[in-house]
Amino acid sequence: MIVVFKPDATQDQVNQVAELVTGMGLRVHFNKGTERQIMGAVGDDRKLQSANWQSWAGVEQVIPILAPYKLVSRDFQKHDSSIDVRGEKIGAKDKMQVIAGPCSVENVEQMMHLSDVVKTEGLGFLRGGAYKPRTSPYAFQGLESEGLDILMEAKKKTGLRIVTELMDPRDIPLFEGRADVIQIGARNMQNFRLLKEVGQLKTPVLLKRGLANTMKELLMAAEYIAAGGNLNIILCERGIRTFEPDTRNTFDVSAIPVLKEKTHLPVIADPSHAGGRWDLVEPLALAAVAAGADGLIVEIHHQPEKALCDGDQALKPKKFTKLMEKIRAVAKIVGRDA
Amino acid sequence: MIVVFKPDATQDQVNQVAELVTGMGLRVHFNKGTERQIMGAVGDDRKLQSANWQSWAGVEQVIPILAPYKLVSRDFQKHDSSIDVRGEKIGAKDKMQVIAGPCSVENVEQMMHLSDVVKTEGLGFLRGGAYKPRTSPYAFQGLESEGLDILMEAKKKTGLRIVTELMDPRDIPLFEGRADVIQIGARNMQNFRLLKEVGQLKTPVLLKRGLANTMKELLMAAEYIAAGGNLNIILCERGIRTFEPDTRNTFDVSAIPVLKEKTHLPVIADPSHAGGRWDLVEPLALAAVAAGADGLIVEIHHQPEKALCDGDQALKPKKFTKLMEKIRAVAKIVGRDA
Amino acid sequence: MIVVFKPDATQDQVNQVAELVTGMGLRVHFNKGTERQIMGAVGDDRKLQSANWQSWAGVEQVIPILAPYKLVSRDFQKHDSSIDVRGEKIGAKDKMQVIAGPCSVENVEQMMHLSDVVKTEGLGFLRGGAYKPRTSPYAFQGLESEGLDILMEAKKKTGLRIVTELMDPRDIPLFEGRADVIQIGARNMQNFRLLKEVGQLKTPVLLKRGLANTMKELLMAAEYIAAGGNLNIILCERGIRTFEPDTRNTFDVSAIPVLKEKTHLPVIADPSHAGGRWDLVEPLALAAVAAGADGLIVEIHHQPEKALCDGDQALKPKKFTKLMEKIRAVAKIVGRDA
Amino acid sequence: MIVVFKPDATQDQVNQVAELVTGMGLRVHFNKGTERQIMGAVGDDRKLQSANWQSWAGVEQVIPILAPYKLVSRDFQKHDSSIDVRGEKIGAKDKMQVIAGPCSVENVEQMMHLSDVVKTEGLGFLRGGAYKPRTSPYAFQGLESEGLDILMEAKKKTGLRIVTELMDPRDIPLFEGRADVIQIGARNMQNFRLLKEVGQLKTPVLLKRGLANTMKELLMAAEYIAAGGNLNIILCERGIRTFEPDTRNTFDVSAIPVLKEKTHLPVIADPSHAGGRWDLVEPLALAAVAAGADGLIVEIHHQPEKALCDGDQALKPKKFTKLMEKIRAVAKIVGRDA
Repeated sequence: MIVVFKPDATQDQVNQVAELVTGMGLRVHFNKGTERQIMGAVGDDRKLQSANWQSWAGVEQVIPILAPYKLVSRDFQKHDSSIDVRGEKIGAKDKMQVIAGPCSVENVEQMMHLSDVVKTEGLGFLRGGAYKPRTSPYAFQGLESEGLDILMEAKKKTGLRIVTELMDPRDIPLFEGRADVIQIGARNMQNFRLLKEVGQLKTPVLLKRGLANTMKELLMAAEYIAAGGNLNIILCERGIRTFEPDTRNTFDVSAIPVLKEKTHLPVIADPSHAGGRWDLVEPLALAAVAAGADGLIVEIHHQPEKALCDGDQALKPKKFTKLMEKIRAVAKIVGRDA
Repeated sequence: MIVVFKPDATQDQVNQVAELVTGMGLRVHFNKGTERQIMGAVGDDRKLQSANWQSWAGVEQVIPILAPYKLVSRDFQKHDSSIDVRGEKIGAKDKMQVIAGPCSVENVEQMMHLSDVVKTEGLGFLRGGAYKPRTSPYAFQGLESEGLDILMEAKKKTGLRIVTELMDPRDIPLFEGRADVIQIGARNMQNFRLLKEVGQLKTPVLLKRGLANTMKELLMAAEYIAAGGNLNIILCERGIRTFEPDTRNTFDVSAIPVLKEKTHLPVIADPSHAGGRWDLVEPLALAAVAAGADGLIVEIHHQPEKALCDGDQALKPKKFTKLMEKIRAVAKIVGRDA
Repeated sequence: MIVVFKPDATQDQVNQVAELVTGMGLRVHFNKGTERQIMGAVGDDRKLQSANWQSWAGVEQVIPILAPYKLVSRDFQKHDSSIDVRGEKIGAKDKMQVIAGPCSVENVEQMMHLSDVVKTEGLGFLRGGAYKPRTSPYAFQGLESEGLDILMEAKKKTGLRIVTELMDPRDIPLFEGRADVIQIGARNMQNFRLLKEVGQLKTPVLLKRGLANTMKELLMAAEYIAAGGNLNIILCERGIRTFEPDTRNTFDVSAIPVLKEKTHLPVIADPSHAGGRWDLVEPLALAAVAAGADGLIVEIHHQPEKALCDGDQALKPKKFTKLMEKIRAVAKIVGRDA
Repeated sequence: MIVVFKPDATQDQVNQVAELVTGMGLRVHFNKGTERQIMGAVGDDRKLQSANWQSWAGVEQVIPILAPYKLVSRDFQKHDSSIDVRGEKIGAKDKMQVIAGPCSVENVEQMMHLSDVVKTEGLGFLRGGAYKPRTSPYAFQGLESEGLDILMEAKKKTGLRIVTELMDPRDIPLFEGRADVIQIGARNMQNFRLLKEVGQLKTPVLLKRGLANTMKELLMAAEYIAAGGNLNIILCERGIRTFEPDTRNTFDVSAIPVLKEKTHLPVIADPSHAGGRWDLVEPLALAAVAAGADGLIVEIHHQPEKALCDGDQALKPKKFTKLMEKIRAVAKIVGRDA
């Protein structure tokens, strides 16, 4: 932690700040610059993060040196984490994983059909939402527990690993032992009570970046889960909110390499939500793979025009199959199978 | 709903779209422009909001005419709603309300001291967080149920109305009949399960705008609560996220008049979170009042440098008293008491 | 300047960085933290701003301590600057200035009429654009030099000080000795060649914040002008670009107090462009005054529905007169006449 | 153009609006919805763009149907434009172009060295800035006309096509017949006077997207150039400004496919400025190619740590050569040579 004092800070003010810091078990040292006095605090500066520095008289600026997250940082673990989901790994050096399926579970026929598509393509993970966070209270809200039952049927039939979204801590008993990966959606990225609860589980968690959250905040949300004991975390970039109205979100492709530099956790991308349009799924998916993503989560639907949710961004199975070919080719160039 | 077809849309494609829309009980009419064919759909176009128009071949653009919210709109109710909280009204034409108190409840002494300040100032509402959404899992998370007990003591002693944040549907039994206003924080603005639950209550809800949410989304979140039957909703502007790093958030003062045009619900402002610095509270508070806010929610603390949460943005009681004088003066100019 | 080294930086890497810095005439000192080594550089760290620190092996982060601007900073001059424009001061402690007039000069009758309105209101400054930056090449581009001639007629008749926008260095000869304040528009805030040219003049410059520029960048743009020798600079907040579509821009009212803390230059606000709607001018104007603005620049038009530019945001003279009453009342509360 | 009237608009108000529109040579038709009356205007609605609809009583919303740009739109020309630059084409179906060189021209030796690197790699375009837009007035501002002379030497020696930035209309005589592509930088994207001037030339223009400009605004800026008669325009995505502080800009990779859908002009990407860090150049360059970019513009430097400008984001020649291999491999997958 570096404390920069105002040019007119008094020695008394400086001393008061120093006292507080040493009282927290850190050592301090001073450097007089030409225009400002500066104080460094040596020790674990994460301790000082909830201190109210700016309400101290004489202080101009306080600059943390260490990242506020620890367990999920590269400092804590240098090698890549790879998350084992019933024998398939997400984050393995040699393999990229593609998770596919519809936005929401609609009925048994739909899920049987689409899980076959996924299985036939040789993939290991099926997505499908039973509980749906919808902007409008008048829109389809998901089949809820019935949707989970349908997912279990698809799992039984195909052996695919199920990725599905949890919105409420009260639903955890329904998810445990059934969902193979619990998804925390963008809107719940800072639902701290939910994060704490999934931190108590062993089930892998797919944590989506909030649509206006920084990478640091995403890593802090992951730290919430990790702090509870669950380090099986997969991060997901799915587009952020900007001033640009011509795409649903702005896909932040840079987040992939930057996150992978800061954390050992795997980072995947969601090209369906990022663009919000089926015709953008291919360019964004390939861009993500080229940029080093550990995986993709893609929405597919056999009748997107009739989908109950987000049909606009779903690929038809034929187009998905063609996309997979290109994904595999690009993955190879960056040193991976898919 | 206006459907704009692509210049090269075929008649078949146009017919298919028309069929779907009439199948939903709306009437359609066509207009051939010089470069595009356009179709209007007459009827309640909110029905069509979950349709996947963009996956229909031939369609270029779909433009909704009606706002997606209904119960909270000015169309639905022309006159201002004023929310009665044990005899004091938020949203009344003649009176602006100021809610004050610490960011978080820390101990009995603190709450007794600060509730006295609020009471002495002649105000009716006390804020204080028992459950705290904190970015870091290592930061103080609130006194939780003990904090609620302390708030009840302060209420008993002073008669002040208690405004406190709810983060988890499982805590509702602890809040009911005790909190006078339930606050839904910015990070939970789209926690739809939580919104549905408070929609079932009669307790007034103070709904904060999410830090990257549009006004339309804020109104949709309010619609979630209203759709459950609870129309006692107070909206709160508390700063949005922009590219500007020199303030914690960018206080969107325009949101006050714009929201008040679109909805009949009261709109208040939080100058403490908006700027994140105690020295910005005065200019932002006065700006909000000048722009027509129905109230303010202000953080105060007698020892901000030792506050367990957000001390940086808390006003000391003396400064708060001086601010109240100016608030009252500005309120008078825009036709209100405070 | 603080240099934070990576945890695995070698001593050689550290030495190389130290050498470069001492070679630039600064002194260095080191502090070994528990997880990172840190180097401070003492001296004027503005010298190091164009160094490519991040391409040096071993460096994790470089943190400047001093602001990159100097002449316009409060460090350089503690007291407020007030800019004299033919006897009227912008930035004076006791007086707030209101600049009013149409978006663009359309014809003699319009300017005579509107300059009378401004004069009658007792104000000292008339705005009007002769050169107009328009998003569309097909929109009205301003009367150009003829517009300047009309402004000179209005000036001759009323004695009002003329505020008008310069877009191209080639037009300076037409402006010199005629415009009393040269406006640099938001889109030209980082037109560095234009800034350098007006830095060579003595005419006061009204510099608008770019619609996606930080306050630091605004101050750097002002520093460009100041570095040329012209310190007669007035800053203007006019709304920034955010994700919110329901207002043309988001008026960043916090920028007023924050800028006034960082710089000695006067700061005014443009409530017309900020909201882009005439009905938002009143709340935003009052908010700006309440937040401490040194002045306002307001668009008025007698027939806004027929205005050649931005009629949507122009106030009619009668409404403007009523607004002035409220502006004066709010100004008084924050200690000023208007 | 669709005009939506307020629910309480009077027939008189509606008639007045209709009169204005028919007076502009368009036909109108009305549709009474269940909650709103709607008026369509048939004809070229670009004519109405500078009308001040919102100042008309009774109008709630005005929705344009046609894009405001014409010459650069896909409606105007269905097939891709490919821009011929002395025999090499940018925007050709089969070939992607890579433009490389230093951020700024520093001296003869540097340009000779780096142009050899570019030439040896088999590329056709050399970049290098002689005039530099720098945020700080105290930073290196470019060698100006001397820099152009050095570029001409490199051109003479290698035959490479020169891409260099123009900042001021007064410099055009120095550029004409010497620069093969004139670059308009992000900060000048809405310097309309400069756009008009390059619209008068025949030299191809590389137009960078402003850092907070929408795609529509980029296309409008291109329309300015096209309206002057110069249709040799190449668009460039180079990162936009968002709330994310961990990258210099957010590279909007979606802009590539979305722009290519809206316009026939070629679209290239600048992975150097987008990320602002040399280690992000590879992932972003590959992402851009995978997403369908017609080309790249990449900064290289043999001694980035000593570069006078933006050394942080420059690749060393060896790394650039390795990157080119991967670029060629990814290009092949999306059907192109590079």
